Amino acid sequence: MSSLVNRQIRLVRRPQGVPQPSHFERADAPVPDLAAGEILVRNHYLSVDPAQRGWANDEGNYSTPVPLNSPMRALAVGEVVDSRAEGFAAGDYLYGWFGWQDYCVATPAAVLRRVTEKAIPLTASLGVLGINGLTAHLAFHKLGRPRAGDIVLVSTAAGSVGSFVGQLARIAGCRAVGVTGSPEKVATAVARYGYAQAIDYRHEPDIEAAIARACPEGIDVFFDNTGGAIADAARGLMRLGGRIVQCGTAATAAWTPPPTGPRAERNVLTKRLTWSGFVIFDHLDDFAATAAKLAALIESGQLIYDEDIVEGLENAPDALTRLYTGENRGKSIISLV
Amino acid sequence: MSSLVNRQIRLVRRPQGVPQPSHFERADAPVPDLAAGEILVRNHYLSVDPAQRGWANDEGNYSTPVPLNSPMRALAVGEVVDSRAEGFAAGDYLYGWFGWQDYCVATPAAVLRRVTEKAIPLTASLGVLGINGLTAHLAFHKLGRPRAGDIVLVSTAAGSVGSFVGQLARIAGCRAVGVTGSPEKVATAVARYGYAQAIDYRHEPDIEAAIARACPEGIDVFFDNTGGAIADAARGLMRLGGRIVQCGTAATAAWTPPPTGPRAERNVLTKRLTWSGFVIFDHLDDFAATAAKLAALIESGQLIYDEDIVEGLENAPDALTRLYTGENRGKSIISLV
Repeated sequence: MSSLVNRQIRLVRRPQGVPQPSHFERADAPVPDLAAGEILVRNHYLSVDPAQRGWANDEGNYSTPVPLNSPMRALAVGEVVDSRAEGFAAGDYLYGWFGWQDYCVATPAAVLRRVTEKAIPLTASLGVLGINGLTAHLAFHKLGRPRAGDIVLVSTAAGSVGSFVGQLARIAGCRAVGVTGSPEKVATAVARYGYAQAIDYRHEPDIEAAIARACPEGIDVFFDNTGGAIADAARGLMRLGGRIVQCGTAATAAWTPPPTGPRAERNVLTKRLTWSGFVIFDHLDDFAATAAKLAALIESGQLIYDEDIVEGLENAPDALTRLYTGENRGKSIISLV
Repeated sequence: MSSLVNRQIRLVRRPQGVPQPSHFERADAPVPDLAAGEILVRNHYLSVDPAQRGWANDEGNYSTPVPLNSPMRALAVGEVVDSRAEGFAAGDYLYGWFGWQDYCVATPAAVLRRVTEKAIPLTASLGVLGINGLTAHLAFHKLGRPRAGDIVLVSTAAGSVGSFVGQLARIAGCRAVGVTGSPEKVATAVARYGYAQAIDYRHEPDIEAAIARACPEGIDVFFDNTGGAIADAARGLMRLGGRIVQCGTAATAAWTPPPTGPRAERNVLTKRLTWSGFVIFDHLDDFAATAAKLAALIESGQLIYDEDIVEGLENAPDALTRLYTGENRGKSIISLV
């Protein structure tokens, strides 16, 4: 047994809805000795992600719920301090499922990506080079299939994924139009995230009319993180052969039973749409190559990213709660170093 | 001016809903001399298609409505009797937009396919080698992307397209399950159209439960000609990575405003579905090669087709009306020879 003490944030009560600090507790644990095939990672930065709500609730759509009284499931970036796994050595930097804690004993299966970029801060691995940027790039290019000149509409344009889709669309020669939830986010989307125009859906009496004004020629790619009324409006404005990329459904709180909305069959048929669903963890094999493309865009100054970094493990639960009030400005990160 | 008399069925009143014989009139017209670039086709067989309802109404989604007092728009197969167009000669057989009439003066743009199969009756060009069979093959293979072992669900399984999709699915090594609207059609779907099992949706109190029983492992390809309640049920039973091919929306009579149904976003996302729309006239370049594949399947006895042939031009309107009562058994065709 190592003499190290591992500070953890554990899930101790199961939330209904948005997790609150009261659902978590700080606790210390020993760091066990490594078994063969294991690595010991010292976390430098922890990720705070909207998806953690689903992992904490017991209605996980993609994964089993986090067991009570265990460290909160989280992505993190850290340094290997000891290794009994082939191919991993002390000093390697890794991005993976290392949890809200100081140290993680992991197997290589928990590693999503090796961090090799020397010129880019390590925090970038949690956002633009992590699942947010990778989702934006892979979903936009693989499912959205953009062509230069396309009109690209993005819901949650100033969000963790949308902030990159706007920029990637601009880089691909498209005209990006964003939908977001405040005048401030509209301004940021246009000033920083590549959008030619953005719409504040909370202050539009008729969202379909607003999108139609912003996209008078229609929409070729709809990158949808919300579903709901924005999606209904966008679907009616798609051009022939348009692509809808379903990347999230943030507008709908509960799916049992599914809420109703306008039927989509006729639009899919007459517009020859392709509507497809994207889940980043289906695309692990593309992570290294896609992160390299994103890193090159960052280094050349074409792609920017914003971060909201809070110091201290103990602040992770509060940072998670704040995600759902929209208070964060950029990728939410907990610094341990 | 030729001395030939061209008997026509003209649209003289615009129907609301299903066209009735009273919306049409028989009339004679002269056959004009050919201008440069034109061909004169003598129709042998006329097609009677559900889509003619949309062409006769003034709500055409794909095309302008048929002008009143002109021959009813229709596909037909016939023989070139005179040609002033390069590449066409008397004796050629053609499938194209030749209308409900004896003769058509056409340009090459009206031709969908040259009929070259000698061993297959000419009528086949209107159904299995026409848009029905071509739709089944192209939509199933290009959008459905079947793999051996896949579970394929088809709505309107005994219909003009579904009767081929079941057979093509079986040929591709899939298990085809059909949904259709009578005990008689269930029997035909299983006996003749390649379905391992079929469901009579009119006599099922719970269509989702019935589909789930027939597809206990879920659905990989949903070939949908109806939309509506059958589609809602199928969507919830799709497997990861499933494909929905939207080929028709027969279950919904009117789309202005669109009726509501359960929202699809969550299924599309969590099941990573690909839901796409198919319109056959986008695929003209594939007609010749695909018809050759279908013809080979017919000649080898792997693909069968049923026809409901009525003699006499004057019977075309009644044959159209009967399509919507489900009385026809096989592709509805009017014989002029």
